[in-house]
Amino acid sequence: MPRTHSADPAAASAFPALRTPAGPVPADAPAWNPQRGSAMPSHRYRPAHERVEVPLTGRAWPAARIERAPLWVPVDLRDGNQALAEPMDTPRKGRMFDLLVAMGFKEIEVAYPSASRTDFDFVRHLADSGAVPDDVTVVVFTPARRELIERTFAAIEGLPRTVVHLYTPTAPTWREVVLGRSRTEVRDLVHDAATYMARLAAARPGADIRFQFSPEVFNLTEPDLVLEICNGLTDLWDASPDRPVTHNLPATVEVATPNVYADQIEYLHRHLTRRDAVVLSVHPHNDRGTGVACAELAVLAGAQRVEGCLFGNGERTGNVDLVTLALNLHTQGVDPMIDFSELGTVRRTVEDCIRLPVHPRHPYAGDLVHTAFSGTHQDAISKGLAHHARRAAYLGVPESEAPWTVPYLPVDPADLGCTYEAVIRVNSQSGKGGIAHLLQLHHGLDLPPDMRPDFSRTVQRATDDSGQEATPKDLWELFRSTYLAPGEEGPLTLDSWSTSEPAPGEHRVRCDLAGGGTADGRGRHEGAGNGPLAAFADALAAAGHPVDILGYAGHALAPGPDSAAVAYVRCRIGGTTYWGAGQDTSVLTASVRAVLSAVNRAKREDR
Amino acid sequence: MPRTHSADPAAASAFPALRTPAGPVPADAPAWNPQRGSAMPSHRYRPAHERVEVPLTGRAWPAARIERAPLWVPVDLRDGNQALAEPMDTPRKGRMFDLLVAMGFKEIEVAYPSASRTDFDFVRHLADSGAVPDDVTVVVFTPARRELIERTFAAIEGLPRTVVHLYTPTAPTWREVVLGRSRTEVRDLVHDAATYMARLAAARPGADIRFQFSPEVFNLTEPDLVLEICNGLTDLWDASPDRPVTHNLPATVEVATPNVYADQIEYLHRHLTRRDAVVLSVHPHNDRGTGVACAELAVLAGAQRVEGCLFGNGERTGNVDLVTLALNLHTQGVDPMIDFSELGTVRRTVEDCIRLPVHPRHPYAGDLVHTAFSGTHQDAISKGLAHHARRAAYLGVPESEAPWTVPYLPVDPADLGCTYEAVIRVNSQSGKGGIAHLLQLHHGLDLPPDMRPDFSRTVQRATDDSGQEATPKDLWELFRSTYLAPGEEGPLTLDSWSTSEPAPGEHRVRCDLAGGGTADGRGRHEGAGNGPLAAFADALAAAGHPVDILGYAGHALAPGPDSAAVAYVRCRIGGTTYWGAGQDTSVLTASVRAVLSAVNRAKREDR
Repeated sequence: MPRTHSADPAAASAFPALRTPAGPVPADAPAWNPQRGSAMPSHRYRPAHERVEVPLTGRAWPAARIERAPLWVPVDLRDGNQALAEPMDTPRKGRMFDLLVAMGFKEIEVAYPSASRTDFDFVRHLADSGAVPDDVTVVVFTPARRELIERTFAAIEGLPRTVVHLYTPTAPTWREVVLGRSRTEVRDLVHDAATYMARLAAARPGADIRFQFSPEVFNLTEPDLVLEICNGLTDLWDASPDRPVTHNLPATVEVATPNVYADQIEYLHRHLTRRDAVVLSVHPHNDRGTGVACAELAVLAGAQRVEGCLFGNGERTGNVDLVTLALNLHTQGVDPMIDFSELGTVRRTVEDCIRLPVHPRHPYAGDLVHTAFSGTHQDAISKGLAHHARRAAYLGVPESEAPWTVPYLPVDPADLGCTYEAVIRVNSQSGKGGIAHLLQLHHGLDLPPDMRPDFSRTVQRATDDSGQEATPKDLWELFRSTYLAPGEEGPLTLDSWSTSEPAPGEHRVRCDLAGGGTADGRGRHEGAGNGPLAAFADALAAAGHPVDILGYAGHALAPGPDSAAVAYVRCRIGGTTYWGAGQDTSVLTASVRAVLSAVNRAKREDR
Repeated sequence: MPRTHSADPAAASAFPALRTPAGPVPADAPAWNPQRGSAMPSHRYRPAHERVEVPLTGRAWPAARIERAPLWVPVDLRDGNQALAEPMDTPRKGRMFDLLVAMGFKEIEVAYPSASRTDFDFVRHLADSGAVPDDVTVVVFTPARRELIERTFAAIEGLPRTVVHLYTPTAPTWREVVLGRSRTEVRDLVHDAATYMARLAAARPGADIRFQFSPEVFNLTEPDLVLEICNGLTDLWDASPDRPVTHNLPATVEVATPNVYADQIEYLHRHLTRRDAVVLSVHPHNDRGTGVACAELAVLAGAQRVEGCLFGNGERTGNVDLVTLALNLHTQGVDPMIDFSELGTVRRTVEDCIRLPVHPRHPYAGDLVHTAFSGTHQDAISKGLAHHARRAAYLGVPESEAPWTVPYLPVDPADLGCTYEAVIRVNSQSGKGGIAHLLQLHHGLDLPPDMRPDFSRTVQRATDDSGQEATPKDLWELFRSTYLAPGEEGPLTLDSWSTSEPAPGEHRVRCDLAGGGTADGRGRHEGAGNGPLAAFADALAAAGHPVDILGYAGHALAPGPDSAAVAYVRCRIGGTTYWGAGQDTSVLTASVRAVLSAVNRAKREDR
């Protein structure tokens, strides 16, 4: 075994750049936790709860349940697009828009029209081509500057239903470092821009234009300032239940555990005025890997609308992933309101549009997520799938309609247009259940339960040696060489044979044996018994190859009269148990070969 | 513009397999939410709260804070390894183990020794080579079967400190479908296995062997059964604060929003007996994309130990990602107790060991996560970095020690061994701030603030046309061709020129002009003014090329006397403002070229 590492710290370090933790064990750390202070400069950061205070009392969200999908608003064409090294061109934007519509999204942010010519042109394209279905609303994004608001309104001219989405930096660092403005100045800036938007909208009587506002980096902004600005806009825009304003509260940068965001949303939910005229929206990002949790807890806390991107595209770590969010509802029995019946198509289209891959472990959509390699998982899944089939039969419904409770698989891959083929994959960590499952699924072999550990040991030796996955084809080849080949290739072989049943229940076999390693036993032999296998065993004994047949099983490999049959036998030979198998269009020939296989496996082992 | 989509549903569908949502709008849905029922068979699933009830009252976790790192226990070599198509061989396992030790992990699950020969051999290798440092404890995993427990104890013989980790399926579906055993039978199964473990440990007096138990799919098991089994084991193993038992509560499959898991953990935390003799551990997976949140909320709820894998490797969607968890603490000012100062090295080593990539948007470690493409983000980051440098200077500390509050960057990339080079990248969505930042960082150009929008429009035209990212080299080339080239290449060029200052403050220029598109103005010209640029402008006017110089800025491109200088001028020519720039080792020559650049840019535009 190669020596790849060492207890000698000097020799050990294939990782010379890592500072070996050298700090003291914290004084009050328990004995079982010897972690030492690292050299990481964590003192440079302040916890979120010191940066922004949320005066929420008596929170209700932890006990709430999600019983209906929020309004999903994909921002792939705006926030997602601006995070790409190569932003989408118009054909790719068009494919993305079509995909979002086909999946069932009803409100779609399509552009930041004042930011670039391609964005502006795409909105014009939507307006001119009439590509927006009747029940879909288009959102466009604008900063709080008059000339940019003007250009935004120029872009949406002629679109039937639009939301103009105004954003302004409001968090302290942004006010101070980026804008150089006070709280009051920021509030006035928003007020001026919003007034101008209202004026431009009023100049288009009959146009269905609604408004949205985002206080930038909401989760670092003082809640009272957010309330002051948002409630001011609700009044200014005269929002009503029929024509509500959307207040969108972005966690543009994640800075705290998701319960803190939920507290912030619940506080706003309780204190926004004209609450029935406000659509409370959230826009989580994923810097701490908790974007999905932030969105879910925010919905528990009162959010009605969630902005995100398919598969979590977006600046830095991305926007929250709408696919995961919606399918999380599906697996809780809540209609996601979005069609994921061909998730593979959705994934390929997105990958092609944004030119970024979906990770193999991405929830629901990754290549490996409906897959089990570990033996215990495979065994459980295999039993679970069999149980599922029985339950569907009992209920008299198709398997695709029966309640789903298969262990380790939180969703039926069939719901997403996936097959079961990839669910169980075999390597050295796998067990007999998975191997048997694959042999049955791909090659129609239903190994007797007693035989599975025997074959499993063979597979594990092979995968331990190769270090590689064994494909269903590999498993079949291993099964063939282990069990079928010895019955056909020797050392002991059967040149010809015949059976007869001279009287009911009295069977005779006559056979010509060859090979066998020694001259003993070659030639013609006969045997008798209460069945052809017993007679064959008797003939083998006469030839000097005694064998006790302990068990037999067999089945057709496929439906229909022409199918080949496979036979499995368990034999005792010289005090040891051996399994053998044979295959033939005749079930009898298959059985005879299976017995010969067991005999030859014993002989091969002897040598 | 290519027509890529259409409002005609028949023509639109590049996605024919998607079922177009056709259900009704829910009766009580508000007008702004026209989402329709999808055809997804969500009725097949039951929500988690119907599957398992948690009798927690008065939860405390939502108001808690994380003030110290839990004990991190990487399971990359066991749970992670068994999920790989190609499990690690011994050299790769050795590299992974060395890496984990170098990063500072103190308890490491290394194998499932009874599951495969490679796992068994690796534990023996650790024992025989003495590769385990004095403060590191090794964990091995075993099911509740005597012969497998025996083999597990055989594997750890001679290791100085070990935890033997027993697991058993306990959740209802697992009991019924996989084991075929009742609650009582499962409890007895665990009790028998645990008794046997205690006996084998007692047979090795002096060996430091502790115990761990995992009720498999804890989050779907009845809490009273978990308590009954765990408390029974605490007694049976006679756990004490000095020799605690680890009760590990796996969310082997995520089935609910993370607040539900937190409730389950808090309930156990409150009801486990001999609480000071129990290490409460969690083991989240990521099926719903909320593994990190589950771990964080569980720590708020009382968990003291977290099992996971680097970058979230593991069966299906993976185990929870320990890198993200620990760095989430770092960015909250809490010492993660793990060294991430060379995160790139860690990432490359893991990718090499497990042969799976880290996604470009993976928190902290992905290629794109310290990157901003959008103009507003770039502007904010650029200002934030300048502010950071000023604050560090004010505090008299290195920038790497100063408090970090740069907008949109939740962590200083330098903490992780990353440079700032990739932070800002430019495409058609980018703005003047990012472009100026890159020109300064890579080429030493400090464009005057007034000039930035001018160059930004040029860049945006180029990136809109190309659809591609503009690298720093591309930006420099664009700057050169836009501003420097016109000063050197014409149409109007300067064959030779000289200056003189016959009296203080009285400057004269004599120059020989060529080119210029017309014969006018060619030849020798003279001018006078209160500085050499004014005199040059006077000479140009005399030659028929009038220009008003409105502003001037210049700087050396690098420190030191030999550095080239660059000059920027803003001129009014024929009623329009033009920027020009020039470069030379003489600042005067650079300035003269800058003026000529502006004149020639006006001429080029005229043509």
